[in-house]
Amino acid sequence: MSALDYNALGFKAIVVTLDGAVLIVTINRAKQYVFTLKFVLLTNHSECRRNSFGDTLPAELIQVFETADRDDRVRVVILTAEHTAPAYSTGTDVSTAMADFSRPEGEADYRDKGGQVAIAIYRCRKFTVAAVNGHAIGVGMTGLQLPFDFRFVWEGAKLGFPFIRLGISPASTSTFLLPRLIGHSRANSLLLTGATVSPTSPLVSSLYHEIIPKRENVLPVALAFAQDLAKHTSQISVAYTKALLQHPGETNEQNHLLDSRAIKLLGTGEDAAEGALAFKERRDPKFNGNLSKDSSPWYPWWRALDVKPRNAKL
Amino acid sequence: MSALDYNALGFKAIVVTLDGAVLIVTINRAKQYVFTLKFVLLTNHSECRRNSFGDTLPAELIQVFETADRDDRVRVVILTAEHTAPAYSTGTDVSTAMADFSRPEGEADYRDKGGQVAIAIYRCRKFTVAAVNGHAIGVGMTGLQLPFDFRFVWEGAKLGFPFIRLGISPASTSTFLLPRLIGHSRANSLLLTGATVSPTSPLVSSLYHEIIPKRENVLPVALAFAQDLAKHTSQISVAYTKALLQHPGETNEQNHLLDSRAIKLLGTGEDAAEGALAFKERRDPKFNGNLSKDSSPWYPWWRALDVKPRNAKL
Amino acid sequence: MSALDYNALGFKAIVVTLDGAVLIVTINRAKQYVFTLKFVLLTNHSECRRNSFGDTLPAELIQVFETADRDDRVRVVILTAEHTAPAYSTGTDVSTAMADFSRPEGEADYRDKGGQVAIAIYRCRKFTVAAVNGHAIGVGMTGLQLPFDFRFVWEGAKLGFPFIRLGISPASTSTFLLPRLIGHSRANSLLLTGATVSPTSPLVSSLYHEIIPKRENVLPVALAFAQDLAKHTSQISVAYTKALLQHPGETNEQNHLLDSRAIKLLGTGEDAAEGALAFKERRDPKFNGNLSKDSSPWYPWWRALDVKPRNAKL
Repeated sequence: MSALDYNALGFKAIVVTLDGAVLIVTINRAKQYVFTLKFVLLTNHSECRRNSFGDTLPAELIQVFETADRDDRVRVVILTAEHTAPAYSTGTDVSTAMADFSRPEGEADYRDKGGQVAIAIYRCRKFTVAAVNGHAIGVGMTGLQLPFDFRFVWEGAKLGFPFIRLGISPASTSTFLLPRLIGHSRANSLLLTGATVSPTSPLVSSLYHEIIPKRENVLPVALAFAQDLAKHTSQISVAYTKALLQHPGETNEQNHLLDSRAIKLLGTGEDAAEGALAFKERRDPKFNGNLSKDSSPWYPWWRALDVKPRNAKL
Repeated sequence: MSALDYNALGFKAIVVTLDGAVLIVTINRAKQYVFTLKFVLLTNHSECRRNSFGDTLPAELIQVFETADRDDRVRVVILTAEHTAPAYSTGTDVSTAMADFSRPEGEADYRDKGGQVAIAIYRCRKFTVAAVNGHAIGVGMTGLQLPFDFRFVWEGAKLGFPFIRLGISPASTSTFLLPRLIGHSRANSLLLTGATVSPTSPLVSSLYHEIIPKRENVLPVALAFAQDLAKHTSQISVAYTKALLQHPGETNEQNHLLDSRAIKLLGTGEDAAEGALAFKERRDPKFNGNLSKDSSPWYPWWRALDVKPRNAKL
Repeated sequence: MSALDYNALGFKAIVVTLDGAVLIVTINRAKQYVFTLKFVLLTNHSECRRNSFGDTLPAELIQVFETADRDDRVRVVILTAEHTAPAYSTGTDVSTAMADFSRPEGEADYRDKGGQVAIAIYRCRKFTVAAVNGHAIGVGMTGLQLPFDFRFVWEGAKLGFPFIRLGISPASTSTFLLPRLIGHSRANSLLLTGATVSPTSPLVSSLYHEIIPKRENVLPVALAFAQDLAKHTSQISVAYTKALLQHPGETNEQNHLLDSRAIKLLGTGEDAAEGALAFKERRDPKFNGNLSKDSSPWYPWWRALDVKPRNAKL
């Protein structure tokens, strides 16, 4: 894949910056207005100013995570917002939701956009980090956080799970991801109550890799974390480790057969030799392997389901 | 279903009160004596005074949760005890256990009563809340707590998992439910040691939605929580959200197909329209949907196993 | 099985002591040197002094856990190290790893030794306790801790998960076991970062049954815990409870069918009668049942996979 200019991809709802091997994706719907008739009729201004999940944002997020997955230069993807924005994301636009629901397709053909985005993030073979430097509600709390490998959060953020108080159900694969991340007891306390909680609440704190007192420090801390990982990890080692965690097999024995394959493949590879040498020489490693050339015929060992909408662009 | 009088159902081991949309079920075996010969021979008084799990209690609990599941008036079911009783529940009667074990059926036909009750609670499509305002031992800690959506507990309660110290194994589906709720590390520390712990122990605290200092406040706090949920949630939204959490599919992709169906069904329904309108008008919603009329042909999407005893009344 | 002398089994990498019903296995590679040419060429002294996972240690651990599983005298197995050793275990020998990787077998035939050991420990039907009285890195943190029922740890231990920073992947079935024990959120924070953490870190603390301030107290505390369990539990009750936790069925209904069988089998057995009698007489029970004579035809109810290496001694 030739060197790609993310800025040439025509993104409007996100701003994308490649900083070394770290791709920073910033939600850009805090200041942007979409003056369509539908907008005026169905939404109010404040929604669009709060990084709501609508317009082109879902499609652009899918595109950027699918592109980063294939771009050998990228080792970590961070999703964040302007820390001066009113919120990290306040969830789905009413206008977008109503437009989606008004399509004539039946329940079996409908595809929740939050889930489409969550799956693109979950499938990305690079590290993924959510730097939640503002309030997060609805899909801002689910699809834009739960599928990530790591979550950093501002201590003052309001974290809201309002679904059940709006007559709907949680989507964005959150009923799969949240119990898996923190257990069913805590997941019930969040998804079944419609709670809004602080990151330090024992109901939600185990979801976060780090809780950061100052809002403006969330991205810098997450970025330093990402740069450290980018410098010290091998792409193929990261991809196989993520895959083992996501698809561990049904028993410890199946897991043993899988992790044995991975350890033999990786352990005899060039990156592991470089890792051992760098460790011995007490220096930073230089991992040259990448996913385009170093994967194995038995990867992936699970079957991905095609869940794309059949009859429509997203 | 015509308006049902729970008090006409002849319950002896429980007292049932319908308070608005909240059904309060109080275990009523603290003061009641059953002077049968078997009782005199096989139990001692103190057992029956401590809300033990025996006599008609299991069958009545199954009946009340199955009835509440179908009763459109009910949105939340609370199980509790008198806070002046010696305990929330001290587990299975020795007499009941011995009578059960003495039946000639083989191991494959035996059905643990704690499990029968736990399944009835777990299957109830309404919110379920355990208000544990006293000590809880054995099935009082497992079948009468783990299948609930939420658990409130008195800080001074003794929580006991004695099974493994009595030469038996934990039952009431606790080896399925407890690791799922709080992870295998904590579940091992409780079920494999036969521990008795305080609610504030880090081994068990994540099991509880709220830990309440005063015993007499447990039910009032749980009731206020229940009334708030009853007022602000739609029955069908609750039922589908519970089902997504209990039966999320095997992968995030399967979950996406399921939660997309639910979000389309619910999002285009009357309760969601009312939810959005109430949110906009900054007032409480009035959800008129109910499970008798608003479910969909594809619910349930999983196959329930018939686990009722074949050859006997429970 | 006639009375076995563990000291006659020729162990070199471990020291084994049967203390009542508690088998204490001490890793013995802190002071022992293996002066082979390969050792001189491929390892450095410090590795072998740090209870590294190499030479005969894996095979001896497998043998001792498989033997203890069948030895009716044994009720608990503790794995520990000398508290004066530099570490509990510092992970795999470079020499051992390189020798393993150099074998001509392909990825599908390779079997990770850490996983072989982890499976032997996980399958052991007796209680298993890791008394981590020193630093633990790599397989010392995964295969030698995660498959145990309980983990006790010295508060000052450094706990390291370096895999992803060495260009390899975590093995020893850790991608199966760790998320199951403490949830995927915490497991990601440890396995995907290559972190070294303290036992009191919220990222890892829920992995431990108890965190102990003084290094020299870890084994005594674990031993007292083990002796208490040995005195108060029935072998068959322990084996079936462990099996229910490891193989609970896919739904609560399947679990109900399994735990009902177990409760009928155990509840009508001699050990349960003794347990009830001892409870009534307020004395310690004397459980005479054992796994050689008291198991049932339907145990195990799951199918164990044969994962032994096909073409080589381990």
